[in-house]
Amino acid sequence: MDFLTIIDYLGTFAFAISGIRLASAKRFDWFGAYVVGFVTAVGGGTIRDLLLDVPPFWMQQPSYLIVTAAALGFVIIFGKYVIRLNNTFFIFDAIGLGLFTVVGMEKSIAHDYPIWVGIIMGTLTGAAGGVLRDALINEVPLIFRKEIYALACVFGGLCYYLCTFWGVNDVVAQIIGAISVILMRLLAVKYHLSLPVLKGETGNT
Amino acid sequence: MDFLTIIDYLGTFAFAISGIRLASAKRFDWFGAYVVGFVTAVGGGTIRDLLLDVPPFWMQQPSYLIVTAAALGFVIIFGKYVIRLNNTFFIFDAIGLGLFTVVGMEKSIAHDYPIWVGIIMGTLTGAAGGVLRDALINEVPLIFRKEIYALACVFGGLCYYLCTFWGVNDVVAQIIGAISVILMRLLAVKYHLSLPVLKGETGNT
Amino acid sequence: MDFLTIIDYLGTFAFAISGIRLASAKRFDWFGAYVVGFVTAVGGGTIRDLLLDVPPFWMQQPSYLIVTAAALGFVIIFGKYVIRLNNTFFIFDAIGLGLFTVVGMEKSIAHDYPIWVGIIMGTLTGAAGGVLRDALINEVPLIFRKEIYALACVFGGLCYYLCTFWGVNDVVAQIIGAISVILMRLLAVKYHLSLPVLKGETGNT
Repeated sequence: MDFLTIIDYLGTFAFAISGIRLASAKRFDWFGAYVVGFVTAVGGGTIRDLLLDVPPFWMQQPSYLIVTAAALGFVIIFGKYVIRLNNTFFIFDAIGLGLFTVVGMEKSIAHDYPIWVGIIMGTLTGAAGGVLRDALINEVPLIFRKEIYALACVFGGLCYYLCTFWGVNDVVAQIIGAISVILMRLLAVKYHLSLPVLKGETGNT
Repeated sequence: MDFLTIIDYLGTFAFAISGIRLASAKRFDWFGAYVVGFVTAVGGGTIRDLLLDVPPFWMQQPSYLIVTAAALGFVIIFGKYVIRLNNTFFIFDAIGLGLFTVVGMEKSIAHDYPIWVGIIMGTLTGAAGGVLRDALINEVPLIFRKEIYALACVFGGLCYYLCTFWGVNDVVAQIIGAISVILMRLLAVKYHLSLPVLKGETGNT
Repeated sequence: MDFLTIIDYLGTFAFAISGIRLASAKRFDWFGAYVVGFVTAVGGGTIRDLLLDVPPFWMQQPSYLIVTAAALGFVIIFGKYVIRLNNTFFIFDAIGLGLFTVVGMEKSIAHDYPIWVGIIMGTLTGAAGGVLRDALINEVPLIFRKEIYALACVFGGLCYYLCTFWGVNDVVAQIIGAISVILMRLLAVKYHLSLPVLKGETGNT
């Protein structure tokens, strides 16, 4: 198990935890919480794979199911203590976001799609799982209203692109891309950076 | 029209009825109710077919559209009397759940996927239509909170697997798998068997 | 840029505006509004392309992303004045609906699907983006309850089919199909034509 795989599983674990915790707030049963956790963790990558017309990544090996099961067990056993670990999970989540974005970009560029498709696929891989999660628990998607989230994926994707454009080594470009996402996300939360809200028209539509 | 086809249409009819009734409670028009009924009936199998990258089953022949139309006509004509048939529809729904689970497993195993993918695909075929239905009518998915539902699909899938593992004839294994789902579902509702609910964290996420 | 492309972009613009306006009523940020606008505009065609197993149309060229960006800029800059243009957008939306329906039908017939699949695909292309939009903003889908909308796509699809059945030239059949959708939609809104609502069972399901 190499370093990238460990990061991948940590990110999956953090994403699954976020889904399971929101499901628990809605009083879902264990199975429902598991499904929400799994969809949060693999949903973005699944949408990407369907759009790219490649076999969904989590159907190749059962490890994502197992990591989600571990996340469910963790929440069941440690219950309230999970809240104290909020900062840890936040870091994992940001790392997962960065890694998933780069993985998604890589995968679509490997299938000969142009860079702008790659950036969309990277963003979908990182952020769409959270949107599916919020659809399942019947909430307005959090990521469209809180601190910068999906835009960090777009930003990281652009950084990655600029690196390759300037001839930077591919591995270095990946690392820079992922770190850009993570940094932007950390800064966004630390300084409460949000995008402007559209002036609401109430009841006119 | 063989026995399996009749069961398939009965299950489709029961699933469509459940969608149409929930849509009617939300005051959808006939077209909306039809769409919700159709999505409830074929949604799970459609997600399965997209993930397996095979043509969606209901696009091969119009019978599922026709059965859904019959279900809509039934609810329009018999209106309130439908409620008296609750138990009948519940039995149809359980039979459909069992059959759909086995059909979904078969299909993914026929495409050389391992058994754990088969169990997921069987469960998706049986239970994901109800989740899509609840997303369309903007409700928190029922199956993640009420008596055991999707877990019955997982259980039936495991029974089917054990049968084939022990060398049981394939048709017998299918029947045992389907009956396991149906029995577990009937027992769950009769004795109000539910999975534990995750201790909710309110407002921490 | 030919006439059809201009119509296509106008329709995309109108669909994106409708998504962005509803997102702004929910106080989404710019990124969220952009995503909702984009999903409203291309969501139906994406579902169609996934079901037909062809590459999603908007991944072939960035123009749909750019039109959506223009729609977002338009709403940001002109804000409240957009409301005064309600009638203009309504016309664009109806034209887009007609065009998208015919495009969807054409595409599935070009892939050798029967006419009834074509009508479904046309209706999905025209109307499913609005359903995805309402799922994203966590509202009950509007099109299942208000004036005739998706049924206009079905009607236009049938008109198109009858034209080809009677040997009408293909381009003429397309124009008649699109105009049927547009006319039915305009008449539906002008005369408040709605489908019957299913008699609700409250709390029985």
